[in-house]
Amino acid sequence: MTTETLVVEEDDANLDSEIVKQMLKQLRALDSFDTYENWSKAKIIDPIVLTKERKREIPVIGDPDEITLSRVKAYYNSLATIIEMKSGLMAAPMINITHEGFGRALVMVGKLIVVDKVLRDVHRWGFPSLEKMVSQSDKTVERAIDLIEKYKDAATD
Amino acid sequence: MTTETLVVEEDDANLDSEIVKQMLKQLRALDSFDTYENWSKAKIIDPIVLTKERKREIPVIGDPDEITLSRVKAYYNSLATIIEMKSGLMAAPMINITHEGFGRALVMVGKLIVVDKVLRDVHRWGFPSLEKMVSQSDKTVERAIDLIEKYKDAATD
Repeated sequence: MTTETLVVEEDDANLDSEIVKQMLKQLRALDSFDTYENWSKAKIIDPIVLTKERKREIPVIGDPDEITLSRVKAYYNSLATIIEMKSGLMAAPMINITHEGFGRALVMVGKLIVVDKVLRDVHRWGFPSLEKMVSQSDKTVERAIDLIEKYKDAATD
Repeated sequence: MTTETLVVEEDDANLDSEIVKQMLKQLRALDSFDTYENWSKAKIIDPIVLTKERKREIPVIGDPDEITLSRVKAYYNSLATIIEMKSGLMAAPMINITHEGFGRALVMVGKLIVVDKVLRDVHRWGFPSLEKMVSQSDKTVERAIDLIEKYKDAATD
């Protein structure tokens, strides 16, 4: 994957969204070698954006590497954190990915599953644009909050 | 682990319990080399029983091997199958175990988490006796059915 050319602009308004803020926090937390220390927000989040061109460079069949797996984890951790902030209830992510890159990601609140996503081709995980990532995450969080409202008893058990 | 001496008797009444029947089915399904072909039920289920003596022979710290992991999976698959039979609703297990043998096992029915178990020291996974396995499983299934009744809407969503 060519990462030399950034697709995320330094002044992209989406960089101030809650999901990107959380993602940056999560990615920095996982960055044990301080690679990101002097990187801009745009540069850190950039590999999450998988444009058509970038996607084309990744083989259709492949095993996810550690970096990609850590990004997927960071993403569901971020969703859980946002759901927690919005609902005031503890939210826990659980991710299961096989070596072949198939799996499932959950976010749980109490006894309720509020996010449930089947994962495929994790080695090509990403969003077509930062904007798409934000809108899709907003929708997922909104749906989770609705489920918590609907099944409040199970969510607070 | 010494498995030469069986602790499960051939005429143990617990061999006819639902959980042991399911476990045998699951273990046979995973037995791709037909190791179990001429084995008795008692002999197949025997390694699940971790008596004090057997436990003492396993180091306190250790990584779970493939066989132990497959047994844990077989167990939660079995619980899910029994819950499914008793409730008439689809039940799906999800297990997450780190290389160090820590993790979490879930059984989900609809959007409801009906079994939620923190796993520790999976390399020493097992039950002190077959009787204990049956009574503990019965309790877990009963609790799951109660939860389904209590949160029927979430369970059928």
